[in-house]
Amino acid sequence: MKKITLVMAMSQEATPIIGQLALRACNDFVSRTPARAFSGQYKGLEISLVINGTDLTHNVECVGTQPATLAAYEALNHFQPDLLINAGTCGAFAEKGSKIGDVYIGERIRFFDRRIPMGDYEAYGHGNYPCPLAVDLARQLDIPTAVVCTGNALDMSPTDEAILKQEPVVNKEMEAAAIAWVASLWNVPLIAIKSVTDLMDGGQTTSEEFLQNLCFASQNLNEAVVQVMDCLAEKLQLSFS
Amino acid sequence: MKKITLVMAMSQEATPIIGQLALRACNDFVSRTPARAFSGQYKGLEISLVINGTDLTHNVECVGTQPATLAAYEALNHFQPDLLINAGTCGAFAEKGSKIGDVYIGERIRFFDRRIPMGDYEAYGHGNYPCPLAVDLARQLDIPTAVVCTGNALDMSPTDEAILKQEPVVNKEMEAAAIAWVASLWNVPLIAIKSVTDLMDGGQTTSEEFLQNLCFASQNLNEAVVQVMDCLAEKLQLSFS
Repeated sequence: MKKITLVMAMSQEATPIIGQLALRACNDFVSRTPARAFSGQYKGLEISLVINGTDLTHNVECVGTQPATLAAYEALNHFQPDLLINAGTCGAFAEKGSKIGDVYIGERIRFFDRRIPMGDYEAYGHGNYPCPLAVDLARQLDIPTAVVCTGNALDMSPTDEAILKQEPVVNKEMEAAAIAWVASLWNVPLIAIKSVTDLMDGGQTTSEEFLQNLCFASQNLNEAVVQVMDCLAEKLQLSFS
Repeated sequence: MKKITLVMAMSQEATPIIGQLALRACNDFVSRTPARAFSGQYKGLEISLVINGTDLTHNVECVGTQPATLAAYEALNHFQPDLLINAGTCGAFAEKGSKIGDVYIGERIRFFDRRIPMGDYEAYGHGNYPCPLAVDLARQLDIPTAVVCTGNALDMSPTDEAILKQEPVVNKEMEAAAIAWVASLWNVPLIAIKSVTDLMDGGQTTSEEFLQNLCFASQNLNEAVVQVMDCLAEKLQLSFS
């Protein structure tokens, strides 16, 4: 695994990683989507990073599963990576042991808002993408694992809450399962790395807590991404020796 | 407007239209996605039709916004149409005057499940794509208009219901707003045509009612699509004379 593509939603989440890995804007990545790409070398790895980009109508980052679907699709098309990493921030439950700034690796990725109670459509809706490679890596790096649960709402409705609470440790976020579906079309493995910005049962409004902790959580995310990259670089070295 | 691409979610919805317009499988449409394409000529129009395709893991049609996003993207890439039409089935409210088999044209298209109550992200989440061309056409053809409301759940949570009921006449479905976003990236106009399979306030389970009425609603949808095509063909003729 030499060619690794990171797909990330928000520039605020990506900035520390772009700096730390010394990635540069990739001008030959041309797309109809608002997605933007960066690339570079890190310890023998060919790294690229694609962010969803900015919505010019509302002047916000293109969060959510629709932009993530296209960004992942264009990233796979352009960079043809051996491995995809989705790094980002998430919500979590304090009652399940999570704290602000905790970083997890996804052991499984699923949708929580695609409720289609109609025969086989139900399982299709939930998705449920297992991540065996990610679980191995999490064990080696002693990073805890969680079920990454994807939906297009930042808030949490009572219906969402009932579904989310059925999972053991939850990372609630807005992109991973869409990326996992696209990765499955290319048969490329996916590692999701998520850092907690807000506690859904913490009493504070999600948006406030999210904005307050975005910078801190993104720094922790950056550290975990570098840890994963170092581990992958080491494996690559070993494969050559 | 000579080149028209229809994007549709389920093969069951598309089959009557493929037959009526005598479209043929389009073998040069090659995609990593499960999407499949058909094409043909109709009264001087160049018609293509792309369906989301089948999920081979669960053996169901790829409904929802993520496959619709990619199918629309690939359709626009491949066929470079002047106009995109999203035809499909939907749920509606009896209390707002809708009946099974009623056909509507979207006057506006929005997401109802992207709740992001955080400054400008809120409006971004809802989307809200006006469809002026569609409104003109609906008036000419005497087809009623509705607000097409897109989300990834077939059922309706109390949170969804409260949001949906704020709109006047509602078509609740699972693809249009994602397609509208992609169409906006290409600056191609979109017409959404929706036929009612189920009444959300009708007392029957949505999945049962949907399956029971899918064939009938798809036939009505087919008739409306042909009506729209005839109107567009006439406009094209007039533009040449």
